[in-house]
Amino acid sequence: MANSKYEYVRAFEQADILLPNTWVVVRIDGRGFHKFSDKYAFEKPNDRRGIDLMNAAAKAVLKELPDVVIAYGISDEYSFVLHKSCTLFERRSSKLVTTIVSTFTSYYVHFWAQYFPDLPLSPPLPSFDGRAVQYPSVRNLRDYLSWRQVDCHINNLYNTTFWALVQQGGMDTKTAEKELAGSLASEKNEILFSRFKINYNNEPDMYKKGSVVFRDYELVEPGSAQPPADEDGAKTAEELEISKTQVEKDKKRRAKAPITIHHLDIIKDEFWERRPWLLSNKPGKIPKET
Amino acid sequence: MANSKYEYVRAFEQADILLPNTWVVVRIDGRGFHKFSDKYAFEKPNDRRGIDLMNAAAKAVLKELPDVVIAYGISDEYSFVLHKSCTLFERRSSKLVTTIVSTFTSYYVHFWAQYFPDLPLSPPLPSFDGRAVQYPSVRNLRDYLSWRQVDCHINNLYNTTFWALVQQGGMDTKTAEKELAGSLASEKNEILFSRFKINYNNEPDMYKKGSVVFRDYELVEPGSAQPPADEDGAKTAEELEISKTQVEKDKKRRAKAPITIHHLDIIKDEFWERRPWLLSNKPGKIPKET
Amino acid sequence: MANSKYEYVRAFEQADILLPNTWVVVRIDGRGFHKFSDKYAFEKPNDRRGIDLMNAAAKAVLKELPDVVIAYGISDEYSFVLHKSCTLFERRSSKLVTTIVSTFTSYYVHFWAQYFPDLPLSPPLPSFDGRAVQYPSVRNLRDYLSWRQVDCHINNLYNTTFWALVQQGGMDTKTAEKELAGSLASEKNEILFSRFKINYNNEPDMYKKGSVVFRDYELVEPGSAQPPADEDGAKTAEELEISKTQVEKDKKRRAKAPITIHHLDIIKDEFWERRPWLLSNKPGKIPKET
Amino acid sequence: MANSKYEYVRAFEQADILLPNTWVVVRIDGRGFHKFSDKYAFEKPNDRRGIDLMNAAAKAVLKELPDVVIAYGISDEYSFVLHKSCTLFERRSSKLVTTIVSTFTSYYVHFWAQYFPDLPLSPPLPSFDGRAVQYPSVRNLRDYLSWRQVDCHINNLYNTTFWALVQQGGMDTKTAEKELAGSLASEKNEILFSRFKINYNNEPDMYKKGSVVFRDYELVEPGSAQPPADEDGAKTAEELEISKTQVEKDKKRRAKAPITIHHLDIIKDEFWERRPWLLSNKPGKIPKET
Repeated sequence: MANSKYEYVRAFEQADILLPNTWVVVRIDGRGFHKFSDKYAFEKPNDRRGIDLMNAAAKAVLKELPDVVIAYGISDEYSFVLHKSCTLFERRSSKLVTTIVSTFTSYYVHFWAQYFPDLPLSPPLPSFDGRAVQYPSVRNLRDYLSWRQVDCHINNLYNTTFWALVQQGGMDTKTAEKELAGSLASEKNEILFSRFKINYNNEPDMYKKGSVVFRDYELVEPGSAQPPADEDGAKTAEELEISKTQVEKDKKRRAKAPITIHHLDIIKDEFWERRPWLLSNKPGKIPKET
Repeated sequence: MANSKYEYVRAFEQADILLPNTWVVVRIDGRGFHKFSDKYAFEKPNDRRGIDLMNAAAKAVLKELPDVVIAYGISDEYSFVLHKSCTLFERRSSKLVTTIVSTFTSYYVHFWAQYFPDLPLSPPLPSFDGRAVQYPSVRNLRDYLSWRQVDCHINNLYNTTFWALVQQGGMDTKTAEKELAGSLASEKNEILFSRFKINYNNEPDMYKKGSVVFRDYELVEPGSAQPPADEDGAKTAEELEISKTQVEKDKKRRAKAPITIHHLDIIKDEFWERRPWLLSNKPGKIPKET
Repeated sequence: MANSKYEYVRAFEQADILLPNTWVVVRIDGRGFHKFSDKYAFEKPNDRRGIDLMNAAAKAVLKELPDVVIAYGISDEYSFVLHKSCTLFERRSSKLVTTIVSTFTSYYVHFWAQYFPDLPLSPPLPSFDGRAVQYPSVRNLRDYLSWRQVDCHINNLYNTTFWALVQQGGMDTKTAEKELAGSLASEKNEILFSRFKINYNNEPDMYKKGSVVFRDYELVEPGSAQPPADEDGAKTAEELEISKTQVEKDKKRRAKAPITIHHLDIIKDEFWERRPWLLSNKPGKIPKET
Repeated sequence: MANSKYEYVRAFEQADILLPNTWVVVRIDGRGFHKFSDKYAFEKPNDRRGIDLMNAAAKAVLKELPDVVIAYGISDEYSFVLHKSCTLFERRSSKLVTTIVSTFTSYYVHFWAQYFPDLPLSPPLPSFDGRAVQYPSVRNLRDYLSWRQVDCHINNLYNTTFWALVQQGGMDTKTAEKELAGSLASEKNEILFSRFKINYNNEPDMYKKGSVVFRDYELVEPGSAQPPADEDGAKTAEELEISKTQVEKDKKRRAKAPITIHHLDIIKDEFWERRPWLLSNKPGKIPKET
């Protein structure tokens, strides 16, 4: 039986190829995680188990999809960066986004029992939505990541103060909200310090900075790395020959590199200068011990 | 600390709103399921546990997303149909697709242990990709579903014959492939019957027809249901008033309706005529017993 | 010299295929026509020469592009409808829109001297922008055209009253604007009649109804035409054979049909019922005399 | 009469905003210009009047749309480059493309009689189609323009040789085609020189290099200009204040700058280094005499 009679319906599938030579960020968000975190009584302002679980799932995504060069997570959101030279799935947007969202979800559910051994999952189960955004320049990409890290800081300072007022100050949540409405960062710092003896600077970096996940190589002295040449454009046949071998070598080195989780400032140049492999997409030296 | 300096990056997010008044099919596919089914030694040509697990995950998607009117699954693929009047997530394509993919994945991993109690999951975990396709008319939508059901038939007849040759006929897989290359349906039927005493017609509908999942109401006599009026376009303020109350009522009835899994012919008109609620998106009479 | 080194840039061209089986409306608008009509002292509220020129250009578009089934124009805007079955330029959106905009502009400039013999064009020259919009159903398409014709009526009633107040009532434009702010249709009719003895109903249809352009065939008795079958979907090889011959025949008949300009109500069913060829895209009987 | 009943159809218009911070090339092509150039007996291989007309229309586009920084034309095609910082029409793709196509068409038809005084236009009239392509980096943009200029060279060498064989060598077109099939550039040069005493290098640059149109300022010594800083991203409020004044100043200077047509090599760095305003989008020094 031929299938030709109905096959015309394939013509309704529309192309959604992302523009070549742009950085792609796939950002995923927990769906209804406010309610979800209540259901499983997540600790406030930050639940260590919940963040560790997010980070473990993100790490698994990098392991399964070597095209992801760096990921950055805060709260119930994670951003995965694909290098501008990435050609995975011919850059089809839906395929890239759904693969990342699905892989992340799969590990989140699978690892749940490790991080919440006493709280078995029950329907409705956790899920995530996602979208792909294209950034034409390194500046735009770094500004995107800076935007998320500044957001992390703003939210964490607010939440830390809010929950201090509620948990230690005995305020009800509405009063705490009012107290903080329109307050400056300095004022929140002051509330924390004067009323609760909390120095915000001493809070854990994991909460203040969010989590950065990447393949790790030996750090480079700032200034010593060559700036990545603008490698757009075409190569001669010979260069392509060389570069095929190189691609294989790079693949092996990438597979060997440990995927690590950090809580660092990714806004300043230093982070990027010491890790040139992130923007060049060329693997560095494997560190001797991890 | 204001976030305005970096917030400009939000302008890079591009709209992906699906066209109003079109049927939307979100089709998801297992990633690398050939390898995956080998890893867990799925039975050939069909693994009942694997299909039951797919169906359970699909049923959970319908339960969590009442906007899905019908879903159709074969092998490691599932198609979810959103009614042309659906306005969920403002019809944002990425959001719709990722939500369905993620919810499906979440239940697939969560339910795994129920269906494969002796085979604990281990990385790399199962995942799914997905895409949204728009169909302007009921004819196009039904032809899409017919296309998938014809594919189910073609694949299942091939697989049934292929594995009979291998498992019962002792052929190696390469020889079996050659044997079947270019063969007609009638020839496969003949091989099954003459060599293995298998009457393909008696094979289980679950394998021959695939699985259809929908909210179930009392069947309607063909011809007795009013054809769904073409309800495009706008309503008067009064009509809108009425229809808001109606929406609430419909919602409650939908919540009460059992979500059931069938293995039926969805190509013929009869399936659709007896279940007018599928295309009208108006819930029918709740059946007395399920 | 090979061009391969740079040819990679072609990969940056992204597909923009319109969804099959949807009606496509290409609407074009005069750029800065307020200023433009001042420059050439267009008569108010309507300049007959200007409208005739728009209509002549639209008629030329239908002549050059037989895929356009109907066009509707008001003021400095024109909407061109492509049948849902249209496959011109593989339904590439940019190509369809720019071809229509460019053809229209070309004739507008070329015909200018015929309609404004005493007013030679000088830079900045007239130009038009355009966009394609997809409508999945006939209802949506007709509602789009109704929207434009209602707009025509609203604007023309306002403009007729406004310019009566100014030209015959001696009001300055600001006072006239104030006078009409928030006024109902009935109040404008009343102003026209009581102050200027103008019965709006007797105004020319060209101004009240806008202009409709289409290939003209013999009118059909309402009710006698068969409703166009829903012809989505695929055909057998034999049907395709027949339909190729039919396509050629249709093409010839279309070429013979006169393209005419009317000022009719296109909101009511009657217009469409008497001209079944517009929605069926099947040419009718050529009228004996035009 | 309210228009609300039909206004819902506006929701079918879909966003088509181009990605911020990318270079946009709008390329337009003559429709059916092979036939068109036959109709008006264009000279072969190049018709000076036809090219001058194309260039005059392109120059008018730059005059009317100051957002176009450079345009490059060959044969019946023209590419218009919008700076990556361009925000005209909120970067709506359809609006940008149709405005450029329509403006170009308008001037092409209007100027026709100046360049072809003895050949009045008659229907079917000339028209152009167009499309917008995004290029994320200067490298990609320059490679696009290089691609077009190499194409110009390849085509012109071919056409010059082909028409020499036909016009001076008395060959019929089919034989000439065969003669040149698969020939190298050096072989064509050889044919031109040995058979027709034509040194291809001495052919006019207008035909060999195509036409470049831009706002002209004083040339800059290579190396003396500061490389344009990567100005992506946001500015402080104060910087924005300054930059508003700057924008006004730039606008005035741009209006004063002569728009000139050249026939230069735009592949080599020198062209771009001596005209830093093209990539920086900052007007240079107005030349004393043009």
